[in-house]
Amino acid sequence: MAEIPEKTVGRLSLYRRILGRLVAERRSHLHSHDLAALSGSTAAQVRRDLMTIGYQGSPARGYDVQGLIQLIDTMLDGPEVQPIGLVGVGNLGRAVITYFSGRRPNLKIVAAFDDDADKVGRHVGGCPVHRVSEVERVVREERIRIGVVAVPAEVAQKVADLLVAGGVRGILNFAPVALRVPRNVHVEDLDMTMSMEKVAYYARTGPVGDQEERRDER
Amino acid sequence: MAEIPEKTVGRLSLYRRILGRLVAERRSHLHSHDLAALSGSTAAQVRRDLMTIGYQGSPARGYDVQGLIQLIDTMLDGPEVQPIGLVGVGNLGRAVITYFSGRRPNLKIVAAFDDDADKVGRHVGGCPVHRVSEVERVVREERIRIGVVAVPAEVAQKVADLLVAGGVRGILNFAPVALRVPRNVHVEDLDMTMSMEKVAYYARTGPVGDQEERRDER
Repeated sequence: MAEIPEKTVGRLSLYRRILGRLVAERRSHLHSHDLAALSGSTAAQVRRDLMTIGYQGSPARGYDVQGLIQLIDTMLDGPEVQPIGLVGVGNLGRAVITYFSGRRPNLKIVAAFDDDADKVGRHVGGCPVHRVSEVERVVREERIRIGVVAVPAEVAQKVADLLVAGGVRGILNFAPVALRVPRNVHVEDLDMTMSMEKVAYYARTGPVGDQEERRDER
Repeated sequence: MAEIPEKTVGRLSLYRRILGRLVAERRSHLHSHDLAALSGSTAAQVRRDLMTIGYQGSPARGYDVQGLIQLIDTMLDGPEVQPIGLVGVGNLGRAVITYFSGRRPNLKIVAAFDDDADKVGRHVGGCPVHRVSEVERVVREERIRIGVVAVPAEVAQKVADLLVAGGVRGILNFAPVALRVPRNVHVEDLDMTMSMEKVAYYARTGPVGDQEERRDER
């Protein structure tokens, strides 16, 4: 399979969710400019992204919604469920567990980790909570390849090291710190404080340039 | 005040939090390469960013941690507390309220909105919950300029319209949908599903290129 560029992977994920909503609205076809408007992209960008995965619509009817969803499924998802381990069952970790519960059938948070004695041994959102000292063992035994870091910045690197030692190959990192990981591990940062501070700055001083600029960064 | 480029605003926010942790560790000075390593950036990028806000360290001792924090405060924060309104008090909205409670003294979620009868009229994380039909009135009365959209995609545009009608100038958007807003409103998207699907894709197929590529996107 040809490698898909990183930003294209993100947009395919977004397109798929938009298409899923269109299915619910019983729409069967749409054009590149429709998908562009719904995703905050351009029609040219949409066409390039879909060419990357070898999809072309018919000039008259546009893209077939169901067919396109299935192709994106094939490109983005593996044939099996990918188990996920999450470390840090505070408010954020709890919200992430609940948010992803049943959202994507192929992604499942199967184990959570925390050192709070009130949480260890219990279930949160259907997910068992283990001690942090168990990360490496459980990750290995459950063949977890995806880790979520939802702990404070001070302990995030230590937690990432444990996840990687267990065999994790991708990390969704909520801690505001640059994790040092081996080159074969992919890290995606989600920094809520940074995003909020950017919004606050522009709400106070006025936004940058125009909306096109923002869209290009998506 | 000169306009600060958007990506620089994000990095200044990150630098400030890193510097705050150094204060806790009683470090008084650091060099650009130290800050680069801690933030996943390069020394050249750090120097460019700090030049943008008119800061230069001493060649011998490097940057003064406390002085640099104060300068970033002046550049990023307004002189007054910026009140925030949040719509959608589900698991995610609740986590966001708790997460930001007391995190930045100048950013305060003062009003939440939801149509769940069990939530309206109560407090969540110290924050009163109003009906969604009250968004425009409360936003105007409390002079809220920052909105958080934590509702499902289907109703996100409607909610954004209400926030903008009340006077909001910046939106932190958790819904996986491209919001249409006037040009004077800044939107920052935080799409957890997209980030998780990217991590899952690369955990399965192997990561893109090298870490430098990832860092440049930060």
